[in-house]
Amino acid sequence: MAARQLLGDGVNVLPCQRFTDVFESLESGKVQAAVIPIENSLHGSVHENYDHLLHHDLPIVGETYVRIVHNLIAAPGVPFRKVRKVFSHPVALNQCLSFFEKHPQLEKEPFYDTAGSVKMLMEKNLPDSAGIASAAAAERYGGVILRRSIEDDRQNFTRFFLLKKKPALAHRVPGRSSVKWKTSLVFTTRNIPGALFRSLSAFALRDLNLIKIESRPLRGKPWEYLFYLDFLGHVEDPVSRNAIGHLKELADLLRILGCYPAGSAAPTDMRR
Amino acid sequence: MAARQLLGDGVNVLPCQRFTDVFESLESGKVQAAVIPIENSLHGSVHENYDHLLHHDLPIVGETYVRIVHNLIAAPGVPFRKVRKVFSHPVALNQCLSFFEKHPQLEKEPFYDTAGSVKMLMEKNLPDSAGIASAAAAERYGGVILRRSIEDDRQNFTRFFLLKKKPALAHRVPGRSSVKWKTSLVFTTRNIPGALFRSLSAFALRDLNLIKIESRPLRGKPWEYLFYLDFLGHVEDPVSRNAIGHLKELADLLRILGCYPAGSAAPTDMRR
Repeated sequence: MAARQLLGDGVNVLPCQRFTDVFESLESGKVQAAVIPIENSLHGSVHENYDHLLHHDLPIVGETYVRIVHNLIAAPGVPFRKVRKVFSHPVALNQCLSFFEKHPQLEKEPFYDTAGSVKMLMEKNLPDSAGIASAAAAERYGGVILRRSIEDDRQNFTRFFLLKKKPALAHRVPGRSSVKWKTSLVFTTRNIPGALFRSLSAFALRDLNLIKIESRPLRGKPWEYLFYLDFLGHVEDPVSRNAIGHLKELADLLRILGCYPAGSAAPTDMRR
Repeated sequence: MAARQLLGDGVNVLPCQRFTDVFESLESGKVQAAVIPIENSLHGSVHENYDHLLHHDLPIVGETYVRIVHNLIAAPGVPFRKVRKVFSHPVALNQCLSFFEKHPQLEKEPFYDTAGSVKMLMEKNLPDSAGIASAAAAERYGGVILRRSIEDDRQNFTRFFLLKKKPALAHRVPGRSSVKWKTSLVFTTRNIPGALFRSLSAFALRDLNLIKIESRPLRGKPWEYLFYLDFLGHVEDPVSRNAIGHLKELADLLRILGCYPAGSAAPTDMRR
């Protein structure tokens, strides 16, 4: 879904089992772009992918937000009243608890993945079963949506990054000067009290808008911290350049992860 | 595991299906304490539980870190060479991918939960199956650990909070003045550039150590942010009191979530 939003419906997707495989596929040239989840509105930042971003030189060139919508999906001809078993990934099943409370005849059946549960239902043509997955999965495998948006919490969004091998930095799109640019970077400081405060002065004194700041302890190095920081601005703007130069004086390590057009913070629910 | 670390081996645990049930059980007096996960070293902060902390007046009175260790567990008498199917929660199965690559004869079987897979194996006495779970699960259900610590990433820690209905604030433990106290709070500011910088000055100018700072956008309120902040200090220390008073002048909303003895940042692997 994120890949479609970022690259269009015609995109050809290569699924990978692990995040590290995603990064390696892009690095080796096996794929032209990579899409990774970076944070979720209920579950926080995906630190693992921040680690991969630090260890690979693959710039972020775009971002998008996907609302997590769970639908009850069955094979064509299976009416809701016949459904007794509901297959899905346990995380998805657990995000639809109010729905299951309202329909005690339904039994939760853990399955390997959400879309995979729909694929399995269609192949086995189960007459008393349904799956929980996205509308895209129903469309892809020919399932029928029996109930839409059955998730407990509608404020469930995941933010994704689009990575490309090059260009090193996203360039301004000509004629789209109204585009807001975001820059993501990572830096470390030795101890927080003075250092973080001074680091943020590089942005505050230049009236730059911070969009995200998050500390992360460096394990095995007590009192050393990694910070994720996003601010509004293009890295090539003189003000941004000065802020980054200032931050370089103060930080032990500084890595620009990418500069990209800001994704919509209130995404449209295209696929509900 | 976290409950045992925080309250001793004799603790009587009441499992709940949802985090909200945990908070309600404590609020209603059904239980005397609650233990909730608040962040994971790979997966970030559990925003949902920060939300519950904000909506309930249940102070944090303790914290602990649990290392996530996955073990291959089977019924007594089942040798490793006989195992073909491995049951566990898909998240756990996916955290042991190197192990499965090394042992291609093993098939991953998604199950509802890690400990539950061991319970099921023992009940059904399956001769060719194993589960992936903690050592505590093996102990509890009488399973045998065939392979220890088979997870891909050993730097997988979850931080838990201990909540109690009262006292409103944790009091200093007499005679243990060497205990380091941590205070957790949440505040909001209208916009980041000036406001966050000024907010942090309340701590920086008093040489207070920040342990965690994390921004979170308030959905539906563009440019408003919630910040999670932990600092080293007891809320009743004069310096901490002054810092909090200063922050109150600058923040729209400020809530002290609790004050508690800092948990070890490098937990001992008691159960490996």
